[in-house]
Amino acid sequence: MPAGTGLALGIDLGGTAIKVGVVNRAGEILARASRATEAETGPEGVVERIALAVMDALHACGRELSDLDGVGVGTPGICDAARGLVRSSGNLGWKEVPLGRLLSRRLGVPVRLENDANCAAWGEQWCGAARGCDDVILFTLGTGVGGALILGGRLYSGASGWAGELGHIRVMPDGPPCSCGLSGCLETVASAAAMGRAGQEAVAAGRSPAVARIAAAQGGQVDARAVITAAREGDAAAAEILRRAGEYLGQASAMLISALNPALIVVGGGGAYAGGFLLEPMRRVIAEQAMPGPAGVVRVVQAALGNDAGLIGAATSVWR
Amino acid sequence: MPAGTGLALGIDLGGTAIKVGVVNRAGEILARASRATEAETGPEGVVERIALAVMDALHACGRELSDLDGVGVGTPGICDAARGLVRSSGNLGWKEVPLGRLLSRRLGVPVRLENDANCAAWGEQWCGAARGCDDVILFTLGTGVGGALILGGRLYSGASGWAGELGHIRVMPDGPPCSCGLSGCLETVASAAAMGRAGQEAVAAGRSPAVARIAAAQGGQVDARAVITAAREGDAAAAEILRRAGEYLGQASAMLISALNPALIVVGGGGAYAGGFLLEPMRRVIAEQAMPGPAGVVRVVQAALGNDAGLIGAATSVWR
Repeated sequence: MPAGTGLALGIDLGGTAIKVGVVNRAGEILARASRATEAETGPEGVVERIALAVMDALHACGRELSDLDGVGVGTPGICDAARGLVRSSGNLGWKEVPLGRLLSRRLGVPVRLENDANCAAWGEQWCGAARGCDDVILFTLGTGVGGALILGGRLYSGASGWAGELGHIRVMPDGPPCSCGLSGCLETVASAAAMGRAGQEAVAAGRSPAVARIAAAQGGQVDARAVITAAREGDAAAAEILRRAGEYLGQASAMLISALNPALIVVGGGGAYAGGFLLEPMRRVIAEQAMPGPAGVVRVVQAALGNDAGLIGAATSVWR
Repeated sequence: MPAGTGLALGIDLGGTAIKVGVVNRAGEILARASRATEAETGPEGVVERIALAVMDALHACGRELSDLDGVGVGTPGICDAARGLVRSSGNLGWKEVPLGRLLSRRLGVPVRLENDANCAAWGEQWCGAARGCDDVILFTLGTGVGGALILGGRLYSGASGWAGELGHIRVMPDGPPCSCGLSGCLETVASAAAMGRAGQEAVAAGRSPAVARIAAAQGGQVDARAVITAAREGDAAAAEILRRAGEYLGQASAMLISALNPALIVVGGGGAYAGGFLLEPMRRVIAEQAMPGPAGVVRVVQAALGNDAGLIGAATSVWR
């Protein structure tokens, strides 16, 4: 084990919130802080709010930047980790932003940059569901469907940084239009947002009083959380929504299993809280559609770190 | 460049023939020899015939085993390269055969073992269509559809040696039954064998007099070669067979492009001699179905080394 303080700082930069945590080598978060992203203020404004959140988190555990082994940031979109560059992020509205350099200059320490789904995969491999596993496929079910590939123990980013964009695997000919310009992409039918939309349709059609009731109790929003809660309470329409999402995930996974022979598939993000409602149909479709040899060795599990995977992964990337 | 003689011996072990070549660092074959595999005689019999072919090839160029930098073998099926083990090969009818050790003992020199599609990918990367390219997907269209993945400059074999089995990606719900136990796999509709079967059906239905005529001139067999020749002569039914195979290859490729962001897709094996009849529809479907970002950077090309790719790749693996 290298010398060091055994502490690192992880930053999860999202479209709406900046989350910061001081993390130890066991992947435990010792202190947290957060700020609104306010992406419309531009890179300099965002960097300033990241810096304030960093100071808050350090203050909360009585530490200084010099006490840390390093700082890692997970960002949405396509990034060039070697150059610390956010190449393209729809969520932030950024193109070719040198976030690593801006933040490093502001904080006075080196900063590592990585795609957020890649950070989540690192976090799960460091101390979550993928611990000890060298060949891992991660799906994150949120606004879209993110993904990451750990192949032979290393994060794989492809010829130009796009590898792991699993949400844009086409699973439905003539399916719903997708933000990428195509249609029938996995994320149009299996993201947490897609689950929420299907819940809204079920409520509008009067097919799910339970989802309507739960959503009203949550404050009116019919989202994936309301659908998952309703399924747990026995609502058939809600369970059906999760089953269909799971089947589409199974379809994309089957193809990836035949091509890549992973040891493990991890499903994270808000949609993954559906647990067996999602994972059982996913496993069934994999058994039906993936080549038997590699299908026989893969495990399909829920992520262990929940919404902290990206933050923990960004921090622990410092020790890789 | 390491010291050495600059010569290596490559062995392409197939279900019907053993092909051996003495290869230089430019990937040129200086001498060749071949023998029938006669797999039914068991591993010892096959090893003996490999050894005889090796001696023939060396004799043909006035060399001895001690003049070589090494010996590489490409074998069909799943193998464990580190242990020199053929784990499972349907073509040879072998399970858990320590071919590396048997052949090394017979020849008195170390022997490297690798899957045949992986060897073809190595060959194309060393001195063929994929030269200088670190992120490559290879399809080989023969009796089945083989595949190989070079990711980040390295051959990727997955958690248990199955990675790259691209022929078993499902492209057709309720499609034809496949040897793997599933149905609608890519190899049931896009292998050279599938092109030949489609040609037979076209002939039987009287839809392609050209294929019938060419097959008769070849000796009666309606195979992929007859279909490709007929398409080149302007036969519409033959061109349609190749178009459909190309579209299915495009469908599988689109998904792999969204997931893996390769720089290059190489199509080899006998079916690849269809050239543009196959590659143009493949490129069109990729443009329609793959995520625009990674689709914009990938090139789709025909293999350069033809049926020698495996032999050359097995030999040049010695220098990696």
